[in-house]
Amino acid sequence: MKTLPVRQPPTRSRETLRLRAAALVITFLIFLFPAASGRAATPLPSWNDTPRRQAIISFVAAVTDPRSPDYVAPEKRVAVFDNDGTMWSEKPLYFQMFFVFSRIRELAPRHPEWRQQQPFKAVLENDRKALRQCGLEGLKQLLAASRAGASDAEFAASVRRWAARARHPRWHRPFTQLAFQPMLELLSYLKNNGFTCFIVSGGGVDFMRVLLPEIYRLPPWRIIGSYPEAVYRDGKVIRLPKIAFFDNGPQKPVAIAQKIGIRPLLACGNSDGDLEMLQYTAAGQGKRLAIYIHHTDAVREYAYDRKSRIGHLCRGLDCAAKNNWLVVDMKQDWRVVYPAEKPADK
Amino acid sequence: MKTLPVRQPPTRSRETLRLRAAALVITFLIFLFPAASGRAATPLPSWNDTPRRQAIISFVAAVTDPRSPDYVAPEKRVAVFDNDGTMWSEKPLYFQMFFVFSRIRELAPRHPEWRQQQPFKAVLENDRKALRQCGLEGLKQLLAASRAGASDAEFAASVRRWAARARHPRWHRPFTQLAFQPMLELLSYLKNNGFTCFIVSGGGVDFMRVLLPEIYRLPPWRIIGSYPEAVYRDGKVIRLPKIAFFDNGPQKPVAIAQKIGIRPLLACGNSDGDLEMLQYTAAGQGKRLAIYIHHTDAVREYAYDRKSRIGHLCRGLDCAAKNNWLVVDMKQDWRVVYPAEKPADK
Repeated sequence: MKTLPVRQPPTRSRETLRLRAAALVITFLIFLFPAASGRAATPLPSWNDTPRRQAIISFVAAVTDPRSPDYVAPEKRVAVFDNDGTMWSEKPLYFQMFFVFSRIRELAPRHPEWRQQQPFKAVLENDRKALRQCGLEGLKQLLAASRAGASDAEFAASVRRWAARARHPRWHRPFTQLAFQPMLELLSYLKNNGFTCFIVSGGGVDFMRVLLPEIYRLPPWRIIGSYPEAVYRDGKVIRLPKIAFFDNGPQKPVAIAQKIGIRPLLACGNSDGDLEMLQYTAAGQGKRLAIYIHHTDAVREYAYDRKSRIGHLCRGLDCAAKNNWLVVDMKQDWRVVYPAEKPADK
Repeated sequence: MKTLPVRQPPTRSRETLRLRAAALVITFLIFLFPAASGRAATPLPSWNDTPRRQAIISFVAAVTDPRSPDYVAPEKRVAVFDNDGTMWSEKPLYFQMFFVFSRIRELAPRHPEWRQQQPFKAVLENDRKALRQCGLEGLKQLLAASRAGASDAEFAASVRRWAARARHPRWHRPFTQLAFQPMLELLSYLKNNGFTCFIVSGGGVDFMRVLLPEIYRLPPWRIIGSYPEAVYRDGKVIRLPKIAFFDNGPQKPVAIAQKIGIRPLLACGNSDGDLEMLQYTAAGQGKRLAIYIHHTDAVREYAYDRKSRIGHLCRGLDCAAKNNWLVVDMKQDWRVVYPAEKPADK
């Protein structure tokens, strides 16, 4: 047999060799681990295998299977989520309010007038009754005041300082560790199925954008919320102490129309403040999924609905029953509520 | 030499075999086309190799190379683009105004009062002088009226009907074929380098979201613009005949802060209406790139700047000169202006 002379191909660069090596490694890995590369892990592992989990999985299968009559192209697969009470707990008070109170105290030396002025006076004197009397308008004023004036960097630093230090009064964990594990899994399950997910929350958008992108793996522009009026001056956007857009109730579908521009396929909330967002979603043509998270677990989280001031869910439960929406029962449907605790200094 | 017995591995499924076949094909393709898979095509092919093209490429290299002192993580790589005059032409008039005029005529039978009421009367009588006298406030009124009342589907259908039929008075092409080829390439070049690109335009957001996603390959929520007030009612978001947010001048950085939440690394505009957006971008820490597209090509497009009513660029040119911003000279820097013409019925 004749030996062919070894010939150096004229165009074979180092890059080509590196690519061939990479290709061989990839091939080798695929031969070794066919299961890992060929099949997805079980979805929603922290959900018990109840009809609610099945309904979510069937819905996703129906809208993502190209042979299904309910198929929706990936660019139209939008899902929206309320935040407080849907993605993380909201008791004994919206988490952001703990920050707002701490921030008002932090800013008080610059605002001596607050000592005589509600709702600030109530916060500084820790007067819960007076604070309650200020109602929603009082909360909005505090929300706007907590953001006003500060540069992005100053505000973000203040939020981070608070998040590192503050602990939930019942669970004694950082608030950022009280997102619901089953909801984090739902976000990634939808993402893996070509959905684009948004938070559409009444919370202050600047507060949420400091903390939530890391927890939910969402970019800041997919977190929609309330925001204050603002003006541009000398390279900076200055926030004024007045809410420009309060993203709650019927304002949620308005925010979706103005800021997303596509009617969602799936919406998830937990209170009457989410009702219009769920209605707007369900009113779309074709298959849609409206989900209510029902807080039924007094032991592992909280149990509340029709009589609660925070997370009030009354019209929503009636509407869900009438329209066959999915009502997730936290106690029955969730195997775990919160993720495993992380070291305290995280 | 001993022959090894052929052994069927017990776990080899059809899936495994399909994966192996795929791996072999990939390997084969990589061996065949090392250049295509190993190197990116020359970036910005419709740009002449001028210092402006070089500056863009150097900037992108600096912020994307992990060893560079100017490196920026992908999640912070935001780029914003004005639309009219930056991404597509804006002469003899903002393209959307051609639609708005056509839409006002379409809606006129439902609004007999318009025959006596400016700025509508001017549109219906084709009275350019009267229209000019109505000024910016008149334009805003027309913009809002063109959107008001219609459902999303009705409005989108009206925009699509117009886009299919209307032709540019000078180029006799559909307006949707008058996006700048070099800018389309800049968008994909940035995308390929991990940037997230947004349109931040004074144009009506609902109009833009019908036509631009396909041309620019951007999802609707990355198109930011002006929008009318809206209310939610019975599963629908109803637009009112009044602008809620007019996204121009100092409102552009406000829109970026409220809707994106990250100061851009790169901003591109063409008029004084983009100045604050460019200033806001340039005022950020670290390396930033502010780009003005200067309309210098009267033959292939239009030539205008300081004396133009539409696309007025005066303070912007001074600011660019003082701050060493990039001023793209369309005539010198662009090898082609518009993409090759498509069949007329597209």
